[in-house]
Amino acid sequence: MTPVPAPQDTAALSISAHLQNDTFLRACFRQATPHTPVWLMRQAGRYLPEYCATRAKAGSFMGLATNADFATEVTLQPLARYPLDAAILFSDILTVPDAMGLGLSFAQGEGPRFAHPVRDEAAVAKLQVPDMAKLRYVFDAVRSIRKALATTDSQGRSVGKVPLIGFSGSPWTLACYMVEGAGSDDYRLVKTMLYQRPDLMHQMLAINADAVAQYLNAQIEAGVQAVMLFDSWGGVLADGAFQQFSLAYTRRVLAQLHRAHDGVRIPRLVFTKGGGLWLEQMAALDCEVLGLDWTVNLGQARARVGGEGAVGKALQGNIDPNVLFASAPQIEAEVAKVLESFGLPHTGSGFGPTHIFNLGHGISQYTPPAHVAVLVEAVHRYSGVMRQR
Amino acid sequence: MTPVPAPQDTAALSISAHLQNDTFLRACFRQATPHTPVWLMRQAGRYLPEYCATRAKAGSFMGLATNADFATEVTLQPLARYPLDAAILFSDILTVPDAMGLGLSFAQGEGPRFAHPVRDEAAVAKLQVPDMAKLRYVFDAVRSIRKALATTDSQGRSVGKVPLIGFSGSPWTLACYMVEGAGSDDYRLVKTMLYQRPDLMHQMLAINADAVAQYLNAQIEAGVQAVMLFDSWGGVLADGAFQQFSLAYTRRVLAQLHRAHDGVRIPRLVFTKGGGLWLEQMAALDCEVLGLDWTVNLGQARARVGGEGAVGKALQGNIDPNVLFASAPQIEAEVAKVLESFGLPHTGSGFGPTHIFNLGHGISQYTPPAHVAVLVEAVHRYSGVMRQR
Repeated sequence: MTPVPAPQDTAALSISAHLQNDTFLRACFRQATPHTPVWLMRQAGRYLPEYCATRAKAGSFMGLATNADFATEVTLQPLARYPLDAAILFSDILTVPDAMGLGLSFAQGEGPRFAHPVRDEAAVAKLQVPDMAKLRYVFDAVRSIRKALATTDSQGRSVGKVPLIGFSGSPWTLACYMVEGAGSDDYRLVKTMLYQRPDLMHQMLAINADAVAQYLNAQIEAGVQAVMLFDSWGGVLADGAFQQFSLAYTRRVLAQLHRAHDGVRIPRLVFTKGGGLWLEQMAALDCEVLGLDWTVNLGQARARVGGEGAVGKALQGNIDPNVLFASAPQIEAEVAKVLESFGLPHTGSGFGPTHIFNLGHGISQYTPPAHVAVLVEAVHRYSGVMRQR
Repeated sequence: MTPVPAPQDTAALSISAHLQNDTFLRACFRQATPHTPVWLMRQAGRYLPEYCATRAKAGSFMGLATNADFATEVTLQPLARYPLDAAILFSDILTVPDAMGLGLSFAQGEGPRFAHPVRDEAAVAKLQVPDMAKLRYVFDAVRSIRKALATTDSQGRSVGKVPLIGFSGSPWTLACYMVEGAGSDDYRLVKTMLYQRPDLMHQMLAINADAVAQYLNAQIEAGVQAVMLFDSWGGVLADGAFQQFSLAYTRRVLAQLHRAHDGVRIPRLVFTKGGGLWLEQMAALDCEVLGLDWTVNLGQARARVGGEGAVGKALQGNIDPNVLFASAPQIEAEVAKVLESFGLPHTGSGFGPTHIFNLGHGISQYTPPAHVAVLVEAVHRYSGVMRQR
């Protein structure tokens, strides 16, 4: 395992970023927290009636995402309901290929769709890193959300309530949608290109990686306090192909990212759905946190890559979002199972294994909002009790 | 790892089953073969024009599956084209719940659908192990296929060309379809039942397991020479839930299966798509072969569960079916990669690690038939060369 940069290299840098609640950032950097921080993938989403109301006002998903006021409103909605330990920018993983001119849209009740998929040499030849000005709506939203998250502390200083996470799709995941033109259940078109024309695939992935790096750096400059790469489709690749076509380009993104902004470190999170078999290889990435889906045993993942002392990854995940369809006592029991599976995180000073509670995938639109309250409360309470034992 | 039954316990039993080509059975029992045997999941299927012609005659998928003549015809079609080392019964993984009265159908261009999904306590209460007479069409097909596979050897004795594999969906995979009523991308309904009413889920799974065991035993009595359990959806379960709701019921099926028929051993194969993280636990199953999807590194799987000497599992898999969309030299290169990833199988006498070449999932309907010929030839040729080095 390649060691993460030794903490002392960046000791002069703060991690607190003037926050009221910095548990998420502390856990990213493998420092102790009084409870296990929790946020939920897709926490601002269709399961919330207030989200649906704002989306109706905006007219469409992209109408919502491209308007800083609406994006701010929906980003903050779950925080008003639940004591979540982080906010995540409301946006989509596919904004970058949209800025490349592929024409992103979301039909009602369906997933994303590109008007101009990339399926041949000519289409790949036309691809380039887009002008970041085309993504200004995202950076405007970041600035607006940071303002909306600001409050004053007991001494009257401006602080953020919780950190704001920025994100992008990974180069491979973007390529899946760019070639398929939409979601897929067999990834036939993108894998045909991969096996038939690996040269074209590498060309596209290199452009995607450089575009994603510029995009995340611009998010950091606009104010996000952590960045996450969603490799939602890394897990559909064969062993061998994953390393060449997904992991290598995640690495290329990470190598270009700002490590800090305004003297504050920016943690980097990588989530590969279905990537549990490749954890050791992912642990060699220059990032702080690995996200895990629900197929992974957290205790085993901790033993494999969670490390003791200064070297190792913080782990994020991984309850099955379908647990939220059970009743409150069952949700609480499943939360406890996940927390116990990781075990007691690092306590005291210095660095050690830490856990950020999350779902193993985005929350379902059918989730009863009251059940989310049960989950968040259970994470905070039970993880606090574990630390007292 | 629970040891497999020591070979000497069944030394009196034959494994050759009077076959012209017994490489598949020998590899199942971890004995040496001159080349790596190969067959393909869904090898009798829509990518073959002759299959489509027979299906058109039959009128529907179930029309095809329930007619012994048609089922025999399509089972043998891929063997007429390619020197495959095994035949697999043409049928569906969902025949058992159909016999339970759930009403299986296949709409044109869509997956399976049940007219009467099982979604509440009343529906679960009505479930029972079906009368195997309702599945007679399957056993008739098995007898008919065995006859069609018969030929005479140089001494004029009747022998089979290659062994015939029987199969069923696993109890959990059946439950997924029984509750969802069709395919799903989030398994929300079946997982809601699992988390909310684990008692109902266990009740359904116990019935499924006993039904599947009776069904596979009846297939064995009718003449199949190996049986495979497809746990196509085991990999969608969370760690912990997989062990309780999938693996435990696979074990319950295996415990009830005939180990031999007419003095010939019957190997048992278990394939859990997405189960790579749980290989050690699957290795404790009382079966001979574990099937692997393409996310698993075969060399690592061999080290984990492939064992030396008498204890360990034969491994089956695992090329990405999308490789078949590339050109012939690329297919050959990918075949070599998979074979080299497993490494040299056991040679000489006794028992040791063996590999059965297969796809990591069913073949795509869009596959060019000529590409399958390239793959099968490459497996035989390259695996033969490996043994000469």
